[in-house]
Amino acid sequence: MTISIYSSSVPVLSRKLSALLAILNKAEAYAAERKFDANVFVQERLAPDMHPLKFQITSVADHAKFIAARLSGKTPPVWKDDEQTFADLKARIQKAIDYLATFTPEDLADGATRPVVTRIRGEEKTITGEEYFLTRALPNFYFHLTTAYALLRKGGVPIGKGDFLA
Amino acid sequence: MTISIYSSSVPVLSRKLSALLAILNKAEAYAAERKFDANVFVQERLAPDMHPLKFQITSVADHAKFIAARLSGKTPPVWKDDEQTFADLKARIQKAIDYLATFTPEDLADGATRPVVTRIRGEEKTITGEEYFLTRALPNFYFHLTTAYALLRKGGVPIGKGDFLA
Repeated sequence: MTISIYSSSVPVLSRKLSALLAILNKAEAYAAERKFDANVFVQERLAPDMHPLKFQITSVADHAKFIAARLSGKTPPVWKDDEQTFADLKARIQKAIDYLATFTPEDLADGATRPVVTRIRGEEKTITGEEYFLTRALPNFYFHLTTAYALLRKGGVPIGKGDFLA
Repeated sequence: MTISIYSSSVPVLSRKLSALLAILNKAEAYAAERKFDANVFVQERLAPDMHPLKFQITSVADHAKFIAARLSGKTPPVWKDDEQTFADLKARIQKAIDYLATFTPEDLADGATRPVVTRIRGEEKTITGEEYFLTRALPNFYFHLTTAYALLRKGGVPIGKGDFLA
């Protein structure tokens, strides 16, 4: 019994991005209720030497974009990392959701065996789409998604596991 | 092109658990170097109303255990959540690695279509193994794995993305 690389990636990534968008909306509502500017979250960090929320969000969006593009052999669009406001971060997530929606199962049909060039600890390596997806891109996607969640959760936003799994 | 549900789960989970074990070893070394008791990490939390490290670790181990068991129709072993020390947490991770090693690709051959009973927002629901794995168990596994990482990272342990992706 096997599963298609499309069904393990595009719909799952899209669902998680939508959950993240809902979490960002809750963060905005929380800021409004507590009367602080939601934009302060953009540069917020979990630890002083960790990346800020902006980086976590752009990374989540980029991993989703690269997964779909690399597994289908398409050239991914270049997105400038010029987000400055909380609204910009939401737009970046939406852009990734919209991009994923352009892919069909057929686009990713050869995804598992497609050679993917990636950088691992600074060195360029060619690995299969399956290895890239399972051991690099998906863990990275969840890493930044969870870090964004934890950062907002620690910042007081009333969210729970149900929001993450939505 | 498809990928087997075994190769998307057991070896990936096992690799991530080994990475987590290496991260816990780094945390122990850091505590020794700074001359504090590594056991204080066991009850450490990212936010006052989040679960402590102990819960994050036992959850990571349990999600790995349940994924292998449920996708293969085996009865998972019951592990008491009686960990008290940092060494206990490492042993729990090792127990999950050892359990995963007992599974073969054949064991999970019918995993994608196997009915899995799970609780979603308090209600019992039967879903397919594929849906359970992709939309519930794997996100949950990465959620607790990343939260454990972030908690130790925020606690000063010198770890980075390379340790997470190892």
